[in-house]
Amino acid sequence: MVSPQNPVQIYDTTLRDGCQREGLALSLEDKVRIAQHLDRLGIPFIEGGWPGANPKDEQFFLHLREYPLQQAKIVAFCSTRRPHSAVETDALLQASLRAQTHWITLFGKSWDLHVTLGLGTTLTENCAMIRESLAYLKSQNRRVIYDAEHWFDGYQQNPEYALKTLEAAIQGGAEYLVLCDTNGGTLPQGIMTSLQDIQRAFPDLKIPLGIHTHNDSGMAVANAVMAVQAGATMVQGTINGYGERCGNANLCTLIPTLQLKLNQPCLAPEKLQQLTSTSRLISEIVNLAPDDHAPYVGRSAFAHKGGIHVSAVQKNALTYEHIDPQTVGNERRIVVSEQAGLSNILAKAKSFGIALEKTDLASRTILQKLKDLEHEGYQFEAAEASFQLLIRSALGHRQEFFKLRGFHVNCDVGETQSTAIATIKLEVNGKNLLEAAEGNGPVSALDQALRKVLTKFYPEIAEFQLTDYKVRILDGAAGTGAKTRVLVESSDGLERWTTVGVSANILEASYRAVVEGIEYGLLRRSPYPSVPLPVATL
Amino acid sequence: MVSPQNPVQIYDTTLRDGCQREGLALSLEDKVRIAQHLDRLGIPFIEGGWPGANPKDEQFFLHLREYPLQQAKIVAFCSTRRPHSAVETDALLQASLRAQTHWITLFGKSWDLHVTLGLGTTLTENCAMIRESLAYLKSQNRRVIYDAEHWFDGYQQNPEYALKTLEAAIQGGAEYLVLCDTNGGTLPQGIMTSLQDIQRAFPDLKIPLGIHTHNDSGMAVANAVMAVQAGATMVQGTINGYGERCGNANLCTLIPTLQLKLNQPCLAPEKLQQLTSTSRLISEIVNLAPDDHAPYVGRSAFAHKGGIHVSAVQKNALTYEHIDPQTVGNERRIVVSEQAGLSNILAKAKSFGIALEKTDLASRTILQKLKDLEHEGYQFEAAEASFQLLIRSALGHRQEFFKLRGFHVNCDVGETQSTAIATIKLEVNGKNLLEAAEGNGPVSALDQALRKVLTKFYPEIAEFQLTDYKVRILDGAAGTGAKTRVLVESSDGLERWTTVGVSANILEASYRAVVEGIEYGLLRRSPYPSVPLPVATL
Repeated sequence: MVSPQNPVQIYDTTLRDGCQREGLALSLEDKVRIAQHLDRLGIPFIEGGWPGANPKDEQFFLHLREYPLQQAKIVAFCSTRRPHSAVETDALLQASLRAQTHWITLFGKSWDLHVTLGLGTTLTENCAMIRESLAYLKSQNRRVIYDAEHWFDGYQQNPEYALKTLEAAIQGGAEYLVLCDTNGGTLPQGIMTSLQDIQRAFPDLKIPLGIHTHNDSGMAVANAVMAVQAGATMVQGTINGYGERCGNANLCTLIPTLQLKLNQPCLAPEKLQQLTSTSRLISEIVNLAPDDHAPYVGRSAFAHKGGIHVSAVQKNALTYEHIDPQTVGNERRIVVSEQAGLSNILAKAKSFGIALEKTDLASRTILQKLKDLEHEGYQFEAAEASFQLLIRSALGHRQEFFKLRGFHVNCDVGETQSTAIATIKLEVNGKNLLEAAEGNGPVSALDQALRKVLTKFYPEIAEFQLTDYKVRILDGAAGTGAKTRVLVESSDGLERWTTVGVSANILEASYRAVVEGIEYGLLRRSPYPSVPLPVATL
Repeated sequence: MVSPQNPVQIYDTTLRDGCQREGLALSLEDKVRIAQHLDRLGIPFIEGGWPGANPKDEQFFLHLREYPLQQAKIVAFCSTRRPHSAVETDALLQASLRAQTHWITLFGKSWDLHVTLGLGTTLTENCAMIRESLAYLKSQNRRVIYDAEHWFDGYQQNPEYALKTLEAAIQGGAEYLVLCDTNGGTLPQGIMTSLQDIQRAFPDLKIPLGIHTHNDSGMAVANAVMAVQAGATMVQGTINGYGERCGNANLCTLIPTLQLKLNQPCLAPEKLQQLTSTSRLISEIVNLAPDDHAPYVGRSAFAHKGGIHVSAVQKNALTYEHIDPQTVGNERRIVVSEQAGLSNILAKAKSFGIALEKTDLASRTILQKLKDLEHEGYQFEAAEASFQLLIRSALGHRQEFFKLRGFHVNCDVGETQSTAIATIKLEVNGKNLLEAAEGNGPVSALDQALRKVLTKFYPEIAEFQLTDYKVRILDGAAGTGAKTRVLVESSDGLERWTTVGVSANILEASYRAVVEGIEYGLLRRSPYPSVPLPVATL
């Protein structure tokens, strides 16, 4: 067991390998937002994509040059040059250089079978491809990481050749040698043995080792942990374990395990506390329901159900909790207790400039309202604007810009054409107003009608834009009768805010979220939007 | 590393520990059906529940006495007697005897903290409780398994005392000593060390060791595998990893890993081939969506997306698959995606029983149609049923069960109540039909209207159910005017299939997906659903 000399470096590949997950497809904007969240979390390496293989990825690197990240090193992914060709004319290598990142990860073949069958070339040529591609990228002032694809299978089948490919990477100037369990079939003992063999084969090796694992045997995290225990100092994985087939190593499990159980300082402690919210925000961006049972960050990860557990946990949390949930920003949930969440609410209110105390009556009211709404299917994690409106409501400080009286939608879809017309009823300044509008669908018709009537009173609404619209079906198993949660992101060109609506009627859920989006925008523009509210007088 | 002398015994606790999962509640009938599936799969030990703690569990054991299982040993779960009381009058011990099983699993405390804090008794009394409870059950002709709760935490905190509790279990006559990682916080190295220490502490131990793990660190399966490598011969877990917080060790991952990678014959090979179907059937019974990305048994576990992967897999499956999917009853899937080339489409068509060649005109037509639809926002990755309909369309072999003529939706949302009414126009067998229905939202109203008219012609539709409904906004930045992609999953109780619809009008997108779901269901029931289509004549 070698103890690593350098701190472990986390390398996120959500934006490249994570996107291989079936059903996951990201827009350019999604990718940028995810990169920003990872950067804020303090992830040191973020692999952005494979330029040349995917046009969207090229735009991504271009965008990040204009709007650089705070601290993370952004990495382009690339394959070795084609057999028997020159590096200078290799389309993919050139594309990776055009991405203009400081770091490039180059992947090459370690398994003889893949060289002869997949690439259709000789074992010698493959080594030349690895060595020359890395050396070329180095000569272009790039720092290079080498991903040894299929390392563990290759090493098992033909260890001598596999070691030769690593040697080529060393000669090419790789700064990290990352061993990949591409097919995900290796067990922890195999990881340990293979790393020890490498250290024996290259006794003077100064280049740090890395690990990249897949979850096909349910071992992605265990294998990465084992590799770190065997001396690896770079760990590749994805947020929420997204990835092809059964996924990649889940960084939301791996990071706290390394940090809290192996004392590897991956993230600053205050950043580790953002892990749960980052996991959930990214699951919102990719529009996949979060796994409630995920280790560390799942909603149920610290939920106590049985009566014995609950009383023991209340006496001493250590009895039924392997870590303190707050260290990863999660919370203990005791199904019967109503104390859960109060401190969260106070913390959140504070972040809005609203000073609430535990003993305030309003705090209890907010908690109750929150619990009722969560029971209905609301979720405020990603909808802070709606949560602020809720707090103001409970405090009696929600400014009333308009009152909703109802809406009517008429939608006609024929064989060649279709129409969608919305009629809405509102009350503004004591006046009842009726307005109608057409849209290319019922939700945009509702949005149009709302703007039509409200801009007469609040012309600033013309500057508001809906910048994102997401729909999640709650309890999908109820089919088309299921409840719908809609998230709407609005912007006034300077800032963005998100609101939420829930209903069994998808149009009503959308309308509620759109309406709150406009209301919050008006609140921001009103004379005293962020002045601390006079809680003391309540 | 001790190699186990006896074959590994799988011990399923889905019906007891699995039911601790938040949101999982089983009826008596559910429990019986799950037990029967496990029995048929060849699981040797099935823990049925905790009689005395749960009335439903008592009925379960009663039912199984009347309708015994084929081969599995059914086990009752029980705690040690209360402190300073007699075994003969202990309510829970008596209840466990009334279950009349041959086997009883008794759990006791290994961690001094739990003895003093949880039970509020002395360390010596706890050992007496373990020893006497086991001895009493033995005296009543029961075979007894001892579950050492919190073994690993207890051993770490106070190894001397933890070993004393094991000694008490040995003296009591336990036939298995099962070491439990109750809080799920242990890593594989800790499992190995602890088992080696036990073997050193009891050098003449004849009683086999077992392992029971939880997934709070993402290590449940890895820890169980490590325990087997260290000599454990009983492995406890649950189907699909159901369990409290982050779940128990997933037997659907564990069994194939032990059997295919460590050569531990857990199930007969023909039984192992039923693993995928058993996993999915049980997820139907507990009414939780199966995890598509689960190792071995997930729908995506052997799905290949990237073009390089697809062509390599077709040359030699070993290149990108860690095991042959058929060994666990799963199948390889070629995913149709943006990057799809012609070879992906041909492979996919072949899996539907449709023999297409690269040179067929129809192949090019399908590829073009696919690209056009993907450009519109369609995605067939997760909607294979729609893709099959598309292929049949292109080949001129799409059976026409009905023709859509349009629909009208009227949705009225007021301050206190709301209505949603849908009117649809269809043509069936040359007849024009108009039908209307109400729903709790516009989409369910459309679904109801469609079923109302179609069941008159195709009564089998009554058996179809919508089992999932997902909405994704494409280009969310276009706000409420954005295009919407809807995925609908349907089921006829035996199989599930997914269809897709895209439109700027969310109701139209939903309607299209629902309609194709019904159409595909009818196609499956029609006389010649899977006969290879006569491509040669095209």
